[in-house]
Amino acid sequence: MADTKYQTGMIDPLNKGVGALTDPVAPSAAGTLGWNLLDEELSLPAAVLYEDLIQHNLTWMQQFVTEYGARLAPHGKTTMAPKLFARQIEAGAWGITLATAHQTRVAYEHGIRRVLMANQLVGRRNMEIIADLLRDPAFEYFCLVDSAAGVDLLGAFFASRGQTLQVLLELGVSGGRTGVRDSAQQAEVLAAVARWPDALRLAGVEVYEGVLKEEADIRAFLQRAVAVTHELAQAGLIRRTPAVLTGAGSAWYDVVAEEFSKAQIGMPLEVVLRPGCYLTHDVGIYKAAQAQIQTRNPIARKLRSSLKPALQLWACVQSIPEPEKAIIALGKRDAAFDAGLPTPAQLFRPGSSKAPVAVPAHWQLTGMMDQHAYLQIQPGDDVKVGDLIAFDISHPCLTFDKWRHIPVLDADFNVIDVVQTFF
Amino acid sequence: MADTKYQTGMIDPLNKGVGALTDPVAPSAAGTLGWNLLDEELSLPAAVLYEDLIQHNLTWMQQFVTEYGARLAPHGKTTMAPKLFARQIEAGAWGITLATAHQTRVAYEHGIRRVLMANQLVGRRNMEIIADLLRDPAFEYFCLVDSAAGVDLLGAFFASRGQTLQVLLELGVSGGRTGVRDSAQQAEVLAAVARWPDALRLAGVEVYEGVLKEEADIRAFLQRAVAVTHELAQAGLIRRTPAVLTGAGSAWYDVVAEEFSKAQIGMPLEVVLRPGCYLTHDVGIYKAAQAQIQTRNPIARKLRSSLKPALQLWACVQSIPEPEKAIIALGKRDAAFDAGLPTPAQLFRPGSSKAPVAVPAHWQLTGMMDQHAYLQIQPGDDVKVGDLIAFDISHPCLTFDKWRHIPVLDADFNVIDVVQTFF
Repeated sequence: MADTKYQTGMIDPLNKGVGALTDPVAPSAAGTLGWNLLDEELSLPAAVLYEDLIQHNLTWMQQFVTEYGARLAPHGKTTMAPKLFARQIEAGAWGITLATAHQTRVAYEHGIRRVLMANQLVGRRNMEIIADLLRDPAFEYFCLVDSAAGVDLLGAFFASRGQTLQVLLELGVSGGRTGVRDSAQQAEVLAAVARWPDALRLAGVEVYEGVLKEEADIRAFLQRAVAVTHELAQAGLIRRTPAVLTGAGSAWYDVVAEEFSKAQIGMPLEVVLRPGCYLTHDVGIYKAAQAQIQTRNPIARKLRSSLKPALQLWACVQSIPEPEKAIIALGKRDAAFDAGLPTPAQLFRPGSSKAPVAVPAHWQLTGMMDQHAYLQIQPGDDVKVGDLIAFDISHPCLTFDKWRHIPVLDADFNVIDVVQTFF
Repeated sequence: MADTKYQTGMIDPLNKGVGALTDPVAPSAAGTLGWNLLDEELSLPAAVLYEDLIQHNLTWMQQFVTEYGARLAPHGKTTMAPKLFARQIEAGAWGITLATAHQTRVAYEHGIRRVLMANQLVGRRNMEIIADLLRDPAFEYFCLVDSAAGVDLLGAFFASRGQTLQVLLELGVSGGRTGVRDSAQQAEVLAAVARWPDALRLAGVEVYEGVLKEEADIRAFLQRAVAVTHELAQAGLIRRTPAVLTGAGSAWYDVVAEEFSKAQIGMPLEVVLRPGCYLTHDVGIYKAAQAQIQTRNPIARKLRSSLKPALQLWACVQSIPEPEKAIIALGKRDAAFDAGLPTPAQLFRPGSSKAPVAVPAHWQLTGMMDQHAYLQIQPGDDVKVGDLIAFDISHPCLTFDKWRHIPVLDADFNVIDVVQTFF
């Protein structure tokens, strides 16, 4: 990936979690910096990615989706890291899924040429951002519609620009998030789309099944999506060939693959799956979800090993003021905490010639403040002020957005790349 | 404040929450961009600061602290915005408080020349960062010590560099966070400091009273801090004149001011207070804390009006899929959610010539996902897809760290500056 003209494209000495740097350096030089984590050459706390595990996960998910004859558009909002987007595309992804106009622009400026924005496009400045990108005929973009009011705002704007916007009808469920609830709402939205034949082009159907919790409900919702897509295709309302049918967060992508890959709508169809958290995985909510997938899905079982946690946070022990309490220099500024606190995994004593070791099973975080974490230990545990601890995480999305630069490590803890985020 | 040589010093088109920008522009040009929020010239969601309210809060807190003859070192971790640090210094602050070596470097590179790091300094790379800054004799820095192990790591490092580090003895309480619990731990730390007479210089005493919840406990803790400072001064162990005695988060700064301003330790003393959240205030946890302060503190009552909430988030209504539910394009990526969800405050319909109006009292957020918020409304409420809603927040720290650029607005919603953060 080429360096962009944008200043944030530089590796900046003023970001946390990096090594010694006097002046900004180009991303392409990241591998030459010579930093090693265990030699204490990174300012901690730091978030790090492990190259071999990232590569494993990249390959695993692309294989899984390909087995179903589906397309992969990984949800890029998880990482907002264009270097990772590029690797997802190189591994075979059809496009990148995003959530906002800002995110879409970031992806475009870093070379992504197909974005499925799995969200409504609202706000005049946000529409302008997308309209500007669409002046490039090589750029394909989709957004969602679920209300006549929203459709008319889009129609009026893109008509005034003399441009055409591709939209997907979003289906939703009662008690859920966005999306039309029933056929009456659906008809209103379709009638609105029909009012703007030059400005809006219906390309297919979208769902986010993750608002539901039970497999049976999810399958029923997905079957409704297939039926609606068939109905729209038969009515000649889908004006992209192939049509697009898309769903799937990181917890139910196997069920979506099963249901959608059976769809026969009487015209060519691209089934697009949108998991995002698979790339780094975690040891929390997505580990639990993946365990379910490994149990219920035959393709997942067939593939070589499952997803692996590829993102950790390293931090220092700063104080051990009580026999059962160590204070860690890691806080809510550094890690997600909304789906379980980080989990201590490995311990390393600086200067040691040994590799990091697994921490005692009884260690756990009991709380976090903005810049501190409380680690419960037992009297006599071998831990000192200055020791380094690696933490696994739960919920990659809200961990990535705490970091502007994330070093990528090889198996010897050398920094071989620096991934930048654009939140 | 001068533009720095660092790339992140530029206003970058690829950051969220800003207006149309083709190329990066210097921070000094922020006021010439001509963006207006109500004219939909910002990409929403956006975090914004209100200039008149920021100025009010700046003045209020400086006056309060000055009334007690104390020094103000606002906690900069809240905003991590050097433009705001500069204004705090211009308003009379003695220095800036920070939590990490990274934060300290950011402040230094933007002109701050006195940092009280209210935290332990751990990790070799973090020590290197501070040691490099200390080569500037105009830079004054303090960090905390609370263990002999930590002191010896600092002593060995700074001795090897031939430099002297100023340290503050941190006092803590049982069940709290960092800090020595009792006189035995304190004696160990002081003995360790004495082992490194050239590398370490004891400058005073630090507490963070916010780990306690009851006023009586807090006063007792503060009185212990005064007694310890007196004891150290009498023993000739404090090697900075004046000595430093410091405490105070954003909830109990009045009580700290009362207790510490009475201290007589037999040598010159600077009492340093460290609130951080006062600058933007909020309508949540700090509004509640400030209400207590206004009740119990005579100086606070004497000052013209109290602190005012100066930070809001603006976002679009993207969908109204059910009569009692609107979905807002605002999520955990944009706002703190650990101390109460954002509170809807004002509504504006684009194109309207009227000013924003207060939202109905029954509106409230019931949940947030990464990029969405659920707003509870009632059937018949006058709200449409595309409307703009301003949200007040609770917990400024974890809202600031979601944004790299924060527009500053005048009373007509014109952007007159852009504040950059360095998390």
